[in-house]
Amino acid sequence: MALEIERKFLVKNDAFKNEALKKQKIIQGFLSSVPERTVRIRVIENLGYITIKGIGNASGVSRFEWEKEIEVEEALNLLKICEPGVIDKTRYYIKSDNHTFEVDEFYGENNGLIIAEIELISENETFTKPEWLGKEVTGITKYYNSSLVKNPYKLW
Amino acid sequence: MALEIERKFLVKNDAFKNEALKKQKIIQGFLSSVPERTVRIRVIENLGYITIKGIGNASGVSRFEWEKEIEVEEALNLLKICEPGVIDKTRYYIKSDNHTFEVDEFYGENNGLIIAEIELISENETFTKPEWLGKEVTGITKYYNSSLVKNPYKLW
Repeated sequence: MALEIERKFLVKNDAFKNEALKKQKIIQGFLSSVPERTVRIRVIENLGYITIKGIGNASGVSRFEWEKEIEVEEALNLLKICEPGVIDKTRYYIKSDNHTFEVDEFYGENNGLIIAEIELISENETFTKPEWLGKEVTGITKYYNSSLVKNPYKLW
Repeated sequence: MALEIERKFLVKNDAFKNEALKKQKIIQGFLSSVPERTVRIRVIENLGYITIKGIGNASGVSRFEWEKEIEVEEALNLLKICEPGVIDKTRYYIKSDNHTFEVDEFYGENNGLIIAEIELISENETFTKPEWLGKEVTGITKYYNSSLVKNPYKLW
């Protein structure tokens, strides 16, 4: 149980892929995509997770978050009763000074969308911006994965 | 992960209390009360649980269910972001032949409502009906705890 402090950005080009330390296939669905209480089921490679998030504060930077690892078979069964629409993406991990950017490249209904996230210790913590980092979209709910299920990028 | 097979009944009188082997205080809220995918947070005495249920089949007897025990502090924090309205009840456990009835006496907005549940191995399994057992309400969604949050007994 913790407050999650993170900032989100669009990405200008593919250069981040050359800097990636690793990448993972992620499939996820939502049991609840209501912003005040999202409940997410996720499969990352052969691991399963359930994650619950509250709504962000005014700046959208801090969100209440709770996560537990669960059996991948359980996660796959829970995905079956999730809301219609599933997020399918590859996550790239890119080191930048003492931070790690997580860059999500979306497929399917969200094909063409790429979002970079950085987790911070405090809302005011500074960090180096790589040249491929684009416009900040922190707190804009249409970029939440829970929103992308109902209103995917190709409909924007 | 399992199919939960259970039948629900109203209760005619207080006689069940004399037969109870134990009773527990239960507080619970819902992160999602959508019948297709309810996500329940529960505190029973000093234990916490997260439970996910799918919608019932046509008869309402079988429902997909997944449950994990979690820290009680985590459960109390998750209750804070649940949908408005919380269920407060005492559960009585009553042995009857080789089955156990769970009888819930509700308080607060649902004061006056008492529901007995019995879990079965199959939909056709028979069982002895105690004299205090009333009308069957299996599959009637307004008796689901997830419905009682939004449309409590005192409004019926």
